[in-house]
Amino acid sequence: MRCVSRLGAAMGVTASLGLGLTGQAMAAEGMWMPQQLPQIAKDLKQAGLQLDPAKLTQLTEFPMGAVISLGGCTASFVSPQGLVVTNHHCAYDSIQYNSTVQRDLLKNGFLAAGLTDELPASPGSRVFVTVDVSDVTAKVVDTKAQRLNGKARFDAIEANEKALTAACEKDPGHRCNVASFYGGLQYQLIKQIEIRDVRLVHAPALGVGLFGGDTDNWMWPRHTGDYSFFRAYVGPDGKPADFSPANKPYQARHFLKLATQPLNEGDFVMVTGYPGRTNRHRLPAELDFTFGWAQPQRIQWMGEQLALIKEATAGRREAEIALAPRVAGIGNYYKNFQGQQASYEGSDILARKSQAFAELKAWVNADADRRASYGTDISKVEGLLAQEQAVARAEALLRYTSPGMLNAARTLYENAQQQALPDAQRKPGFQARDEKHLVQGLEAIDKRYDERVDKRLAAHFLTQYLAQPAVQLNAPLLAALGLAAGMDEAAIQARLDTVYAGSKLAHGADRMAWLKRDVASFKASDDSFIKAAVALYDDDQARETRDKDITGQISQAYAATMRALIAFKASKGEAVYPDANSTLRVAFGQVQGRKNALDGVDWEAFTTLRGIVAKHKGEGEFNAPAEQLAAIRARQFGPYGVAKLDSVPVNFLATLDTTGGNSGSPVLNDRAELVGLLFDGTLDSVIDSWDFDARKSRSICLDARYMLWQMSAVDKAQRLLKEMGAQ
Amino acid sequence: MRCVSRLGAAMGVTASLGLGLTGQAMAAEGMWMPQQLPQIAKDLKQAGLQLDPAKLTQLTEFPMGAVISLGGCTASFVSPQGLVVTNHHCAYDSIQYNSTVQRDLLKNGFLAAGLTDELPASPGSRVFVTVDVSDVTAKVVDTKAQRLNGKARFDAIEANEKALTAACEKDPGHRCNVASFYGGLQYQLIKQIEIRDVRLVHAPALGVGLFGGDTDNWMWPRHTGDYSFFRAYVGPDGKPADFSPANKPYQARHFLKLATQPLNEGDFVMVTGYPGRTNRHRLPAELDFTFGWAQPQRIQWMGEQLALIKEATAGRREAEIALAPRVAGIGNYYKNFQGQQASYEGSDILARKSQAFAELKAWVNADADRRASYGTDISKVEGLLAQEQAVARAEALLRYTSPGMLNAARTLYENAQQQALPDAQRKPGFQARDEKHLVQGLEAIDKRYDERVDKRLAAHFLTQYLAQPAVQLNAPLLAALGLAAGMDEAAIQARLDTVYAGSKLAHGADRMAWLKRDVASFKASDDSFIKAAVALYDDDQARETRDKDITGQISQAYAATMRALIAFKASKGEAVYPDANSTLRVAFGQVQGRKNALDGVDWEAFTTLRGIVAKHKGEGEFNAPAEQLAAIRARQFGPYGVAKLDSVPVNFLATLDTTGGNSGSPVLNDRAELVGLLFDGTLDSVIDSWDFDARKSRSICLDARYMLWQMSAVDKAQRLLKEMGAQ
Repeated sequence: MRCVSRLGAAMGVTASLGLGLTGQAMAAEGMWMPQQLPQIAKDLKQAGLQLDPAKLTQLTEFPMGAVISLGGCTASFVSPQGLVVTNHHCAYDSIQYNSTVQRDLLKNGFLAAGLTDELPASPGSRVFVTVDVSDVTAKVVDTKAQRLNGKARFDAIEANEKALTAACEKDPGHRCNVASFYGGLQYQLIKQIEIRDVRLVHAPALGVGLFGGDTDNWMWPRHTGDYSFFRAYVGPDGKPADFSPANKPYQARHFLKLATQPLNEGDFVMVTGYPGRTNRHRLPAELDFTFGWAQPQRIQWMGEQLALIKEATAGRREAEIALAPRVAGIGNYYKNFQGQQASYEGSDILARKSQAFAELKAWVNADADRRASYGTDISKVEGLLAQEQAVARAEALLRYTSPGMLNAARTLYENAQQQALPDAQRKPGFQARDEKHLVQGLEAIDKRYDERVDKRLAAHFLTQYLAQPAVQLNAPLLAALGLAAGMDEAAIQARLDTVYAGSKLAHGADRMAWLKRDVASFKASDDSFIKAAVALYDDDQARETRDKDITGQISQAYAATMRALIAFKASKGEAVYPDANSTLRVAFGQVQGRKNALDGVDWEAFTTLRGIVAKHKGEGEFNAPAEQLAAIRARQFGPYGVAKLDSVPVNFLATLDTTGGNSGSPVLNDRAELVGLLFDGTLDSVIDSWDFDARKSRSICLDARYMLWQMSAVDKAQRLLKEMGAQ
Repeated sequence: MRCVSRLGAAMGVTASLGLGLTGQAMAAEGMWMPQQLPQIAKDLKQAGLQLDPAKLTQLTEFPMGAVISLGGCTASFVSPQGLVVTNHHCAYDSIQYNSTVQRDLLKNGFLAAGLTDELPASPGSRVFVTVDVSDVTAKVVDTKAQRLNGKARFDAIEANEKALTAACEKDPGHRCNVASFYGGLQYQLIKQIEIRDVRLVHAPALGVGLFGGDTDNWMWPRHTGDYSFFRAYVGPDGKPADFSPANKPYQARHFLKLATQPLNEGDFVMVTGYPGRTNRHRLPAELDFTFGWAQPQRIQWMGEQLALIKEATAGRREAEIALAPRVAGIGNYYKNFQGQQASYEGSDILARKSQAFAELKAWVNADADRRASYGTDISKVEGLLAQEQAVARAEALLRYTSPGMLNAARTLYENAQQQALPDAQRKPGFQARDEKHLVQGLEAIDKRYDERVDKRLAAHFLTQYLAQPAVQLNAPLLAALGLAAGMDEAAIQARLDTVYAGSKLAHGADRMAWLKRDVASFKASDDSFIKAAVALYDDDQARETRDKDITGQISQAYAATMRALIAFKASKGEAVYPDANSTLRVAFGQVQGRKNALDGVDWEAFTTLRGIVAKHKGEGEFNAPAEQLAAIRARQFGPYGVAKLDSVPVNFLATLDTTGGNSGSPVLNDRAELVGLLFDGTLDSVIDSWDFDARKSRSICLDARYMLWQMSAVDKAQRLLKEMGAQ
């Protein structure tokens, strides 16, 4: 399933550069900013869009006004009463949160009989409705910032972003963010209504919503009923409010309507949503570093993590449950990265990107004005990236060695440091607007932490780390934890036993109490992890400062390189879409199977109910509910059956350019009617986040007819069907 | 892979009955006896056969004269110098036999540089060239046999078969057999030249010949180079002879020529070969028994065997090697039977067969003459089958309980008993003509036997057996082995320790010495397994007599039922092909992929070299040789490339009606030119042995172009290519 990557920025890749990627050549490629659509209006009409493309640029009108963010997933309003449809895997936490052994909603599914039966979603659940997007490039990179470089530039930009955000959030009930496009070339201020009372309305049984499990993840043929329903609630005054029984359903001004015409192979489809991150515009040097070193390394370490967690939780059901989200998270990326790596290694991606970058440089150098505008920056960007990569390489393993509670202690101590400053001067993440998030993050540890696992992981990676030459090691870390170069695993284990035993941070109340304490209290503490965090602070700050300095330098050079690229493409009449950055985008393509997807095998565009019966095993990941199987066998297709398929379509493939974060995105037909939900891509499409290949790339979508059939024939969700205006 | 089933006859299924299966309706169904082809000549011409169908009825002419049996597999002559092509898995034993750790032909492949480098195939290897087939029904079921029933009928038929065989084999260098068709309705005497000097000429590396291993077995898409070459040698006088350096290549009067036109999807193809066993004409009662009880039970016990062998050989490489052929054999059927069972359980097979049988009975009962001819037999056949099934059910587990050396002892003692009789009176299997086979079977135990495994299996199944009510147990067996009802596994184990320790049969020389001893010597022996065999003899004989009596009764009633069926079909102008019985047959169909083979997935007709690269893992079952990968990457397709595929075709699917025993069969085009080798079927086609479904059934064939490409571009087998007249 496509979940937002929080890992992408981890290993020294901070910005982006566009190289030879345009919309015109292949209709399927491109995650377009809504305001770019007029540039490709002709393509859209040609591809079959019936709607006026200009309509898609108006974020507060239909249909864009109906598309919302859940923060990490996309969703859409499907009724005027704030009914929200998204993926089952996007609602998973909330379904699990409301489940007990006695009332296992996860396993059996959930259907609220009426409004009053709708259940609060998991803590921190949000619905974000974008109400304004404005270009703030000139305010973020103002004349002062333009004159600076390195850390000074970084700090100036950050200060401007914080000021813009603070001003915007003076409007109560709103959340604002400044997003960077084209590697720091453009900035947009995005203003969203933040709805805080989100409730779970309906989820199918696990055997529908997660049918196929890990085995089918990233795979075709697919038969997953990956949908669930929330509802947005607001206070009696119509404004966002915390949960209260007095709250009312949010009156959505715009909502999606169900398709009135059957969807067929070859039909135009588009997807609107919040794709998380792509790296299409990366420099060749970045690809080479990522696939030549960083990602293979990361895959190896993730594999080690998974094996260690499995071993350390074996036979301990409680620990297994606690680690399950982490295992699922690592496992998902583990498969994804392996898929990326396999695709990359058999490809000519690096050669093509190198060629494109060489062409860009040649174009710049062919003209004195262009040389003057971009030459210096382009020529230095690779050297700066090399600096960044050297740091990433040296410190990659360090990230894996830190005990979980040491990380918590560092966060808590940084918070104490920041709370001593005026709000506007605090680092992002520690301002008043971040408090809830910070508290929830620290509280969540209780449900996810297992000391034996944590210690096992730390010991394992510390053993690898300490086996390196002593000069390469981080001396403050060794000092803080009482470690020494060359220590063997048993000695490390013994040392960790002492350190872990000397801390009370694993106890929720003890940990949370530190949120209220000042710097002096930290310095006076004898809690082992707090002491270590204090001891490490100066080094942590120094490394952060070093990183900001490099980032500041890169962002300046990168932005200029990107400006050159856009000019180069414009000279050829081509538009350039920016890399995904969790902001609202539009992709378009068509419903399409894939010839010779494997050697000797073609993929059909649609799967059907027959495949559920064929895959059903009565246990594990392929365990369709008995009622569903009975309805399939009875051929109760109702209005959702398709004669040509002699069944109800379940999932379909489409040439849509999507990535993690698009999960739950509505798939719309040529009239912007709802025909499905985006929920995954195929494994050999995961390389798309670096290099789109229209011949191979397929997104996997839930067919709305399957959802409606299941709700109608099996789950009897007539209340919701009626609310959505289903037949 | 398709290997001949030796298990089919095991659990009380002894004859066959045709029910509603005809050639006309679906061109792809039917394993036709060559002499039947004029009956379906029109269909053959319509399907695209360019050759005169009458040519296919002449077994000693082209092309049928080029098709030979290896006993269990099919092969064909591909040069006038006796060069034989068959499947790699049919030559596996001979390749392994010639392999050593120093010279691992299995792993690396083998190519004889010249005639003198060709290596003797494994002991017992034979090439059988059919030279005559004659209908001997009137001689087998002569007027005397016709008047008899039960065991007397069985004995009379057996005596007639032996007499015919003996007379035929008076011609030196020939092997003769009487084969039964349509469940004992017809008998044919088949005369074959038996070539005893067979040599291994060429085999590709394991990473080609067995590419995909167990994982891909029965699967599509497939990329297996399942071919190898033998050569038939005869004495200087041109007659079959034992191996001698003086022997010369057999001068094949007929041999297959390579196709001169490219093979495409939709093209006519036919396959000639020796399919082992099908059960298409079984009565509904037999299907119900097989799939309702016998086969699920067998699957369970096979699963237990596999698990026990794995456990008992773990960490003991020698034992693993010794058990490998058995594990492979059980494993292959384990997968096959599970596939059959899955197909059956989701089907209406039993209903259709029941309906067809009811129609047959109605047709018989609708006419006084027909009632007189068939009525009595049809009415009693099901009751007789029920008797047979009751015995099978009661004694099924008994088969699994016997220690390997007890079986050997029983064979040896039966041999001593039979050797005391004149040759013509001995049981089949113990006549002079069977001696070599008997000796080889007893010798082979040395390579396949591991006492710990044998004892573990015996103890496991004896524990299950002895847990049954005492009255159901075989008292002589308990007495012979010192066992008692209700014994637990530890007690059984202790008892077996004593019994195994009291026998020297596990030592090859000791065991083989018993072949020369008389009955009195056996009775005087204190070897524990010999003593047990002597003690069990009367009971074994009594059960054999009982089985012969039932079989004799069934064969009579079954033959009459089959005669009724053929008459019924003839009344509708339809021909009936007999079930497979390891005799020469012809099937025809076309090259064809499969739409919606899985829900959402189509199968292409051809796979290509690209799939080898995609599946290659560099280890285990997917380990293509580096030279092959290099040749693929270099796109050195030569004359074997197909523009439309942009590669060389590797395997293809065809709607050919085949089964185990067809392995190695030549696949011929419309002019009877060689286009490939049959080597497998898809997993959901395995139910075909009971019920053919032309929509689903696909045979998997090696494309001759892949073989020739590999021989040319990778293995440099120019000598053989030239001999075959390749480009």
